[in-house]
Amino acid sequence: MTQVVLAIDLGGTSADFAFINLDGKILYKENIPSKDFDTANSFVQLVKKRSEQAISSNKLDVKVRAIGIGAPNGNYYRGTIEFAPNLNWKGIIPIADYFKMAFGGTPCFLTNDANAAAIGEGMFGNAQNVKDFIMITLGTGVGSGIVINDRLIYGNDGFAGELGHVIVKDEGRQCGCGRQGCLETYASVTGLKRTVIKLLMDNKFKSELNDISFEELSGKTIYKAAIEGDALALEAYRYTGDILGKALANFVAFSSPNLIILFGGLAQSGELILNPTKKAMEKNLLKIYRGKVPIIMSGLKGNDAAILGAGALAWKEMGVRN
Amino acid sequence: MTQVVLAIDLGGTSADFAFINLDGKILYKENIPSKDFDTANSFVQLVKKRSEQAISSNKLDVKVRAIGIGAPNGNYYRGTIEFAPNLNWKGIIPIADYFKMAFGGTPCFLTNDANAAAIGEGMFGNAQNVKDFIMITLGTGVGSGIVINDRLIYGNDGFAGELGHVIVKDEGRQCGCGRQGCLETYASVTGLKRTVIKLLMDNKFKSELNDISFEELSGKTIYKAAIEGDALALEAYRYTGDILGKALANFVAFSSPNLIILFGGLAQSGELILNPTKKAMEKNLLKIYRGKVPIIMSGLKGNDAAILGAGALAWKEMGVRN
Repeated sequence: MTQVVLAIDLGGTSADFAFINLDGKILYKENIPSKDFDTANSFVQLVKKRSEQAISSNKLDVKVRAIGIGAPNGNYYRGTIEFAPNLNWKGIIPIADYFKMAFGGTPCFLTNDANAAAIGEGMFGNAQNVKDFIMITLGTGVGSGIVINDRLIYGNDGFAGELGHVIVKDEGRQCGCGRQGCLETYASVTGLKRTVIKLLMDNKFKSELNDISFEELSGKTIYKAAIEGDALALEAYRYTGDILGKALANFVAFSSPNLIILFGGLAQSGELILNPTKKAMEKNLLKIYRGKVPIIMSGLKGNDAAILGAGALAWKEMGVRN
Repeated sequence: MTQVVLAIDLGGTSADFAFINLDGKILYKENIPSKDFDTANSFVQLVKKRSEQAISSNKLDVKVRAIGIGAPNGNYYRGTIEFAPNLNWKGIIPIADYFKMAFGGTPCFLTNDANAAAIGEGMFGNAQNVKDFIMITLGTGVGSGIVINDRLIYGNDGFAGELGHVIVKDEGRQCGCGRQGCLETYASVTGLKRTVIKLLMDNKFKSELNDISFEELSGKTIYKAAIEGDALALEAYRYTGDILGKALANFVAFSSPNLIILFGGLAQSGELILNPTKKAMEKNLLKIYRGKVPIIMSGLKGNDAAILGAGALAWKEMGVRN
C-alpha cells in the first residue's frame, strides 16, 4: 500500500484532484467542475465520490494520509476560503473542515495557490534544501510565497506574502485591488500587455503588434513577436523586467533569500524576462547582497505545479520530508 | 547568586557594558572607550578587566550565563563584525570568539544594533508576546529588525532586514550606500533635515528655520519649531511621514505583522511623525491589512534600548524567556 496525500487545486471553473506520493509522483489526477455548485460542501462531496471511484476503478493501492488544498484567498490558519472573487461561494468558507468531515477525520490543510506553489518548489522543485527563498508567480496577476528558515511565512493573519500588491510606482497604474501602482499592474501578463499598448502610444514603433487590440493581445503574441526581434515587444519585456528587478532588490533587503524563483505565464518567456530582471535587480541591490541571489525558473512543470504544491503542503504539515 | 548576562553595546567612540537579569533589570552599567584600540582583542580585554572590577568593587553576587553584543555590521551567524565603517578594526573581526575565549568559554552572541533593539523590544518592551512585528529605528540612518514567528530573521547570510535601504523613490536622494532613493535618505533625522532645506528652496515659507544652515540644523530644532506651529517644520514631518507610511504599507504586504514599532531620534518626535505615518500607511495598505496593524513607539528607554537588546539576545539564545 502506497502512502499518498490527496491534493486539490481549486480554481473558479474547475478543480484538479490527485493522489501524490512522497516523491512527488502523481499516481492519479482528474479534472472536475467547481463552478456549478451552490455550496462548497456539495463540491466536497463530488471530490469524495470521484476520488473513491478513482481508487476502485484503477485498483489504486493507496492510503490517504492527509489532504492538501491550494485555493484562491485560502487562509492557512483558519482553513477557510475568504471572499474569493472568482468562486461561487461567498463569504468565509470553512472548506478544510468540510473535507476533514467528508473524509472521516483525515487531516486537511489549505493555503492560497501562490503559497502552495512555493511549498511545492521547496519539496519537489528547484528549491529543495533551500532554507530562504521567494517564489514569484507571474500570471494574470502576481502572487508570491516567501520561505524563511524553511517555513512558508503566513504572518499575523495568514496573508503574508502579497508581493504582487507592493506599490512600485507612486500614482502608477490602476490595480484591481483599488489602489495604484501595484507590482501586479506591471509584472503580470496583463501588465506586459498594458506596457505594449503604452509603448505604442508613447513612441513610434513599427511593429506587427500595432494591428492588435488590447483584448486580442496575448502573452503568446508578444512572446512570438519578441523572439522574432520585434523592437516594441523586446522593449516591453525590458520595461517589465526593469520594474520587476527593482522590486526584487527591495524584497532582498527584507528577507535576504538564497534564491528567487519565477513561475507562471510571464516567466515562461524565459530569458526575455529573466535577463532584464536580473540586470535591474543587481543594479539596485544594496552592495552586501550583490552577486549572491540567483533568479531562476521554477522546476515544476506548469500544469502540475499547483497540484504538486497542494500535495507538498499536506506532506509538509504531516512532518514528512522527501 | 543572580543569573545575569553580560550585554555590550558597541559604538564607534565608546561602548556600554552591563549586567542584566532575566527581568531586564540593569544591575550595573558602565561606559568605556572603544575608539583607541588597535585591535578588537585589546578592547575585549578591557571589557574583561572592567567587568571583573565592577563585580568585585560593587560586590555583585552574579553568575554570567552568556554574553550578548549589539554592534554595527554585526553578523549573527558568524559572530563577526564585518567592514564596519565607524570602527577602527577593519575587515572581518571574529569578536564573539574573542569574547568567548576571554571569558573562559562563556557563550557569546552577536547581532547588529537594529536587530538587537528588536529582540529587546520583544523581550522587555512593547512587543512582549507579539509573534510577528517589525521594528524600525529612525536615527541618523534607518535600521530595522524583523520578527517572524517569534524569531528575528537573518536570512541567507545574516543581513536580512535592511529596510532603511529599500528604494522608495526612483532616482531619489543620494544615499551613503551609493544608491539613490533609499528610505533612509527620507525617514531619518538626516532625511528630515534634507526635507526642511528642500521645502525651503521649493516654496516660500516664512520660517525661523530659514536662518539656519544644513549643518547647524538638528532634529531638535525642527521638533521645537514644529510644536510651536512652524508651517515649514510641520510640512517636513508630514512629507517624511508620508514616505515612511507608504514604505510601511509595502512591508506589511511582505510579512503581515501584528505590530510596527518605531524607535530612535526621529520617533521621539511622537505624534508629529506618528500621525502622518499612520495616515499614509493606512491609505496605501492592501484592503485585507487595513485597520489591523498598529504603529506604536518603542517601550524601551532610549538610553538603555541598545544594551537591553544585547542582553535580550543573550537570554533568548540561551533558550530562556522572561
